[in-house]
Amino acid sequence: MRLTPATELEYRCHKLQQLMARHNLDAVIVLHNADLFYFTGSVQRGCLYVPASGQPLYLVHKDFMRARMESGLKEVIPLQPDESLPAVIAHHGYPQPARIGMELDVVPVTLFDSYRSTFPQSLFDDASPLIRQIRMIKSHYEIHLLQDAADQADQVYRRVHEIIRAGMTDVDLAAELESLARKQGHQGFIRMRGFNSEQLGCNVFSGTDAAAPSYGESPLGGMGLNPSFGQGSGLKQITAHEPITIDFTACVDGYLVQQSRVFAIGPIPPLLAKGFEEMCTVQQVITDSAKVGGNWSELYKTGLAAAHSLGYADNFMGGPGSQNSLIGHGIGIESNENPLVASEPSEKTFEIGMTLVLEPTLCFPGIGAIGVKNTYYFSSDGLKRLTRSPDNLIVLGE
Amino acid sequence: MRLTPATELEYRCHKLQQLMARHNLDAVIVLHNADLFYFTGSVQRGCLYVPASGQPLYLVHKDFMRARMESGLKEVIPLQPDESLPAVIAHHGYPQPARIGMELDVVPVTLFDSYRSTFPQSLFDDASPLIRQIRMIKSHYEIHLLQDAADQADQVYRRVHEIIRAGMTDVDLAAELESLARKQGHQGFIRMRGFNSEQLGCNVFSGTDAAAPSYGESPLGGMGLNPSFGQGSGLKQITAHEPITIDFTACVDGYLVQQSRVFAIGPIPPLLAKGFEEMCTVQQVITDSAKVGGNWSELYKTGLAAAHSLGYADNFMGGPGSQNSLIGHGIGIESNENPLVASEPSEKTFEIGMTLVLEPTLCFPGIGAIGVKNTYYFSSDGLKRLTRSPDNLIVLGE
Repeated sequence: MRLTPATELEYRCHKLQQLMARHNLDAVIVLHNADLFYFTGSVQRGCLYVPASGQPLYLVHKDFMRARMESGLKEVIPLQPDESLPAVIAHHGYPQPARIGMELDVVPVTLFDSYRSTFPQSLFDDASPLIRQIRMIKSHYEIHLLQDAADQADQVYRRVHEIIRAGMTDVDLAAELESLARKQGHQGFIRMRGFNSEQLGCNVFSGTDAAAPSYGESPLGGMGLNPSFGQGSGLKQITAHEPITIDFTACVDGYLVQQSRVFAIGPIPPLLAKGFEEMCTVQQVITDSAKVGGNWSELYKTGLAAAHSLGYADNFMGGPGSQNSLIGHGIGIESNENPLVASEPSEKTFEIGMTLVLEPTLCFPGIGAIGVKNTYYFSSDGLKRLTRSPDNLIVLGE
Repeated sequence: MRLTPATELEYRCHKLQQLMARHNLDAVIVLHNADLFYFTGSVQRGCLYVPASGQPLYLVHKDFMRARMESGLKEVIPLQPDESLPAVIAHHGYPQPARIGMELDVVPVTLFDSYRSTFPQSLFDDASPLIRQIRMIKSHYEIHLLQDAADQADQVYRRVHEIIRAGMTDVDLAAELESLARKQGHQGFIRMRGFNSEQLGCNVFSGTDAAAPSYGESPLGGMGLNPSFGQGSGLKQITAHEPITIDFTACVDGYLVQQSRVFAIGPIPPLLAKGFEEMCTVQQVITDSAKVGGNWSELYKTGLAAAHSLGYADNFMGGPGSQNSLIGHGIGIESNENPLVASEPSEKTFEIGMTLVLEPTLCFPGIGAIGVKNTYYFSSDGLKRLTRSPDNLIVLGE
């Protein structure tokens, strides 16, 4: 367990204050757990008040002593439930803010309305684009945590061959791997930004179930155990001669990386074996083209063109009729960060410190799905891979 | 796996339409996964449009075929991303709504704003109080699912003695029990309503760690593995002669029950052993007083008075300075439903079909915590217990 260094927190708040100046915000009120962790090093109940300049105030309802222990910020302050936020701000010598930024993509309406009542004279704007822009660029400290998460993933995959066997269900295998991951320090909860965003750490999809369409953004959604949570591993029994995809989100000290690998008990059908090799080829084409300064949506076109030229126009990133228009995305404290490698045209370019999860995948409804997923980051020497397990299809003896 | 019966869905939508009439709402747009599951039997990406009268429309972006298979509603309709909601409503013969209810306690500001733009002439109001009021009363079908969840909990607790041993960490034990639960059909994800609500299915707290204050509403928060997720089981090693609380949220087909039991390896200190017996006494006092027609906050007073009369004014529901003002709550599809047995004065009374999680608990900072948690429901014959494991402190041989 690491505490986020005070220098990291200072730098992050400083970056936010720079962007606030550019967007004419006098204050940002941070409430969302993921952002609170990023800017305070802690997720106790309360808020972070970031003024245009000067020290941010971490105002904590509960538990103050834990916030004090966990956060490297200079100003960690207990806040009584009935205490007035404007009074606290004034007491610390800050002016009342005319324009306030809040995380409007995640803060619910009633909570937002309570802040509007608290600051009736202020105008409000969405601060999430600023926050996501800062969080998109990882520091050396953060890359280090991501490397540790990649190690955790590799440790879990090294154990798969001991556990997997024909006759067990997808969820049985997922349960064993989740348990292994927890013992390796996985916090058990994956943060994914946005309304209705719910995700598990380990998804196992065997044979036809891998190609089941779902409500998620991922090409591999899974059936899940029931319609209340219709994603992830289901009750399909694992058999020989089918691909078994293990899609895992590792987590160390709140930092996530994603990796998927395909296992099989005995050889799999040629269509899928060939598809696997060709998705590795597509991965190679994309990683060769991913350069600092390169355009996000151009990289999407490159990946799509590679898949199409191999004959997979109808099966790439989903089966016919349910293909996703996303082949890569950033990751960090949340599983769906920027950049986006998507069909939607973008002017944005890759920068040093960005992360990238790439998951070229083929779906053949009624047959199965196949692909590979790895996590990378852009260093000053170009794209580097974080996840370290070998890419090959792992065919175990029958 | 069960599909929610069509008759259940019809009855639930009918109840909502009754309340809508009373609150002058012309439509409710349901977006939140938990509510979507309740009213449609499915959580595919889309929304449920409930008109003042007539069939509700389940409008599905992705995946339509799964929504069609899972939902017992008459009108399950594919919705293209660029399709206009007002046009779809008109096409189905419904008038444009003047007053629309949405789930304003959970829907984020930017998503709400997009619906306001879609219906620029309409007024909006919070529909969550209506939805929560309906969901608070469980049907026989729902009680049946809760009984199955209670069975799952009991199955997990019956295995604890095989797994627990001195030297393992709290999280190691939690990982084993989570894995067992998943193999029993637990979906792995616990829904808890509200912003920043994050929860795991199984929390193990041994010795002093059980009394660590946290940001949660529960008296037992736990240290967690790191400050990014500072709740739940941590790295404390289990030793002999200390209470080991296993706090478990079972889940079958989306329905939750909660149970906690205290285990120990060899006898525990007399202060805690006595505390355990007396929390069982408090539980008995509360359950004896919990009657259909009884007042919510009066029951809180009864429980609090019982704990105070036993000498626990400073340790009941939290240690000195961090005591919670809640000793019970409802449960169902989400872990924090109504009713609330809380200090805040309420005019509301218990009704047949309500559920109740009671968790009288003592916290002694630096020493440990002790208590018992069970889930009940109000039947026409009074309060009945769902969770079925025996209440006693389970002392295993050293």
